[in-house]
Amino acid sequence: MRELKERILKDGQALNEAVLKVDSFINHQVDPKLMENIGNTFAEKFSNDRITKVVTIESSGIAPSVFTAKAMGVDLVILKKSTSKILDDNIVQTKVASFTKGTEYQLTLNKRYINAEDRVLIIDDFLAQGEAAQGAIRLIEAQGAEVVGIGILIEKAFQPGNKALRDKGYPVYSLARIKSLSNGHIEFLEEE
Amino acid sequence: MRELKERILKDGQALNEAVLKVDSFINHQVDPKLMENIGNTFAEKFSNDRITKVVTIESSGIAPSVFTAKAMGVDLVILKKSTSKILDDNIVQTKVASFTKGTEYQLTLNKRYINAEDRVLIIDDFLAQGEAAQGAIRLIEAQGAEVVGIGILIEKAFQPGNKALRDKGYPVYSLARIKSLSNGHIEFLEEE
Repeated sequence: MRELKERILKDGQALNEAVLKVDSFINHQVDPKLMENIGNTFAEKFSNDRITKVVTIESSGIAPSVFTAKAMGVDLVILKKSTSKILDDNIVQTKVASFTKGTEYQLTLNKRYINAEDRVLIIDDFLAQGEAAQGAIRLIEAQGAEVVGIGILIEKAFQPGNKALRDKGYPVYSLARIKSLSNGHIEFLEEE
Repeated sequence: MRELKERILKDGQALNEAVLKVDSFINHQVDPKLMENIGNTFAEKFSNDRITKVVTIESSGIAPSVFTAKAMGVDLVILKKSTSKILDDNIVQTKVASFTKGTEYQLTLNKRYINAEDRVLIIDDFLAQGEAAQGAIRLIEAQGAEVVGIGILIEKAFQPGNKALRDKGYPVYSLARIKSLSNGHIEFLEEE
């Protein structure tokens, strides 16, 4: 997506070889018009997939995903990051490790909001190791629902998340694929 | 706002005298069309206030506030809930106690995203004791910016948050004001 790539080049910061900071337009300060355009782009891409739910992970995925859900005319489900196990028959959880932050959390879903008939589009801001996306897939599939696609704003294509998801058969659609962040320089993959 | 009140009566749950659960359309599963209508309502209400930034608190305020910011044509700033103190000259923090959850956190802002010229509209999902809103005001005013208004989806009018904010001179606009949650029954304040 040209608009997102240009914005990353303009306002993103390669803090080191693994970390791209996009605090000024995605994560902390948010450009809502860009989020709407991103939402419309995902909705268009997956328009023939009979999506019934958009699912994201709190909290940086919420802004782009709520516009995606709006454009597709379906509800959004926000998976919560809980620090503790919740003992409740309505709740399912799965442990996710965050390599970037060196932390782990219980990704949490109330079963009421995903059911076996659902066809789900997962939206998240970053794809790196793919741990969060894999956790979301575990929770969604545990309800008998189908993950039809995964939409990512920024993919660190030099990390294994995309390949791991594609190897399992999930279509991944990334709006900006980063080849390298070396020497403070942001380089995108050349798309076919 | 009639649409929100009707939805609360239809899908909200008074868990006890103090807790209203709106997990199925605001907090966990999100109705994006309702969020857009809420955003448009806030944008209309504060349309003459020359707002330059919308500010919310992660994560339940993000969905309605990103539509508000979109409708107003300004950026959104998401204040983060950090569990720890961050030692960084660019970061300001203030401690906020959550009465509902019995926890506390450091509400966190990167100074770059609010400056002395900003006229800020704060948006949040709930107003009860008002601790989160007061924390947001402290961070915003510490940058020399002005809090021009506070937009709330659901106000627990039987708790002191609204009065404390109004007593300090902040205009509070709540879309649904709850008078009581006694006996599992949701009762709204009669509006003038």
